[in-house]
Amino acid sequence: MNFPLTPREFEAHLRDFGAARYHGHHPFHRLMNGGDLSQAQLQAWVLNRFYYQAAIPRKDANILARSTDPLFRRAWLQRIIDHDGAGDDAGGLARWLLLADALDLRREDVIAHKGVLAATRFAVDAYVHFVREHSLLEAVASTLTELFAPTIIGERVDALLSHYACLPMEALSYFQNRMDQAPRDANFALDYVLEHARTAEQQRQVTEALAFKCDVLWAQLDALYQAYITPGHVPPGATQFGEKR
Amino acid sequence: MNFPLTPREFEAHLRDFGAARYHGHHPFHRLMNGGDLSQAQLQAWVLNRFYYQAAIPRKDANILARSTDPLFRRAWLQRIIDHDGAGDDAGGLARWLLLADALDLRREDVIAHKGVLAATRFAVDAYVHFVREHSLLEAVASTLTELFAPTIIGERVDALLSHYACLPMEALSYFQNRMDQAPRDANFALDYVLEHARTAEQQRQVTEALAFKCDVLWAQLDALYQAYITPGHVPPGATQFGEKR
Repeated sequence: MNFPLTPREFEAHLRDFGAARYHGHHPFHRLMNGGDLSQAQLQAWVLNRFYYQAAIPRKDANILARSTDPLFRRAWLQRIIDHDGAGDDAGGLARWLLLADALDLRREDVIAHKGVLAATRFAVDAYVHFVREHSLLEAVASTLTELFAPTIIGERVDALLSHYACLPMEALSYFQNRMDQAPRDANFALDYVLEHARTAEQQRQVTEALAFKCDVLWAQLDALYQAYITPGHVPPGATQFGEKR
Repeated sequence: MNFPLTPREFEAHLRDFGAARYHGHHPFHRLMNGGDLSQAQLQAWVLNRFYYQAAIPRKDANILARSTDPLFRRAWLQRIIDHDGAGDDAGGLARWLLLADALDLRREDVIAHKGVLAATRFAVDAYVHFVREHSLLEAVASTLTELFAPTIIGERVDALLSHYACLPMEALSYFQNRMDQAPRDANFALDYVLEHARTAEQQRQVTEALAFKCDVLWAQLDALYQAYITPGHVPPGATQFGEKR
């Protein structure tokens, strides 16, 4: 890529790059959207994905801790509130647990991350480390996968409702809330990145941060596929889900 | 487990626990030892495993940096020398590259970790972070997988020589050196752990550190299996190896 690009060109580049690398294309998601996952496989996804969900506020707190700008922090703080809740809003983590309930997972196991795949932990922890160890620009850029979330969430809600009878609309409230939150967050991060990534080196770093984050998401689905789609490969220490449908 | 155990009982527990969780049982290793990997699949293993090899001296330098005991540091330093070399000894990393050469990998790609799986990076980086963020006792305990290395290395050398004609004895010198180094390192770490892990809590932490490290090794093979054994699942950004044998 011929960096530096103009902000408009760089936005187009990031949208193309991210759309191509985003985990919406992963075979695990294609199975989910086609209604081809067993209840046990959906349970594995919900349990493991909760490890990622639970790390998001810590990731965002690390980004908050990097910024010296009160206005930036005021805006970014909302992400933590969205997941942890405030006042009457139980928050995104509590909404994710409704999905776990609907799939008959034991809530205390999900909250304790019991039997989560080691590869899930490694990928998610890499994300938390990344935003601590790289520049604030790269940390913000790593959140740009939210640009691609609304499409995948829309497909997922339709697929889950039509294929999986055990999942009522209420269990999917996490996703419905994200349909509004993700674009707001993504646009803020995109504006920040377009304003601050002006040199070739900065634009290269931003692109690599987005690639890194796409890898974090992809690797989680690869681990689920290896453990719970390919027969007989659940790693030691990970939950063996029952195979009822 | 009914902690605290006596040192003798705790050693037996660690040996049993580690032997059961060690990656010698992984299906990818069973394929390798049976001569059932293609040259492309061996290349994938050597490229990805070099990311782990290259991190070992940084892992050990982090452990060195945790210790306040000159005698401990004097002993532990040898691990870094073993991998990086000194004087006439080219070191373990250079010996690993002989294996890459024998498999027709481009040396500069291997050294630059070009096309390594993201999941390899996440697992290995988790190990480097672990020894920084946990106690020195847990950091030392995480190296105890070396107790189980000689058996697997012996099987591997025999298997590679008998099944893979492209691999001459010289290309396997990394493993031959480890046959002596691994037991020396493992015994030092085991003595340290048995001396310092006396309470139930310490023995639990040591066991979890060993489990963590077994997971680091297992997850690397899971990622290789998902990408290069299961057809059609090479993740974005990872090397597509040719399928010649």
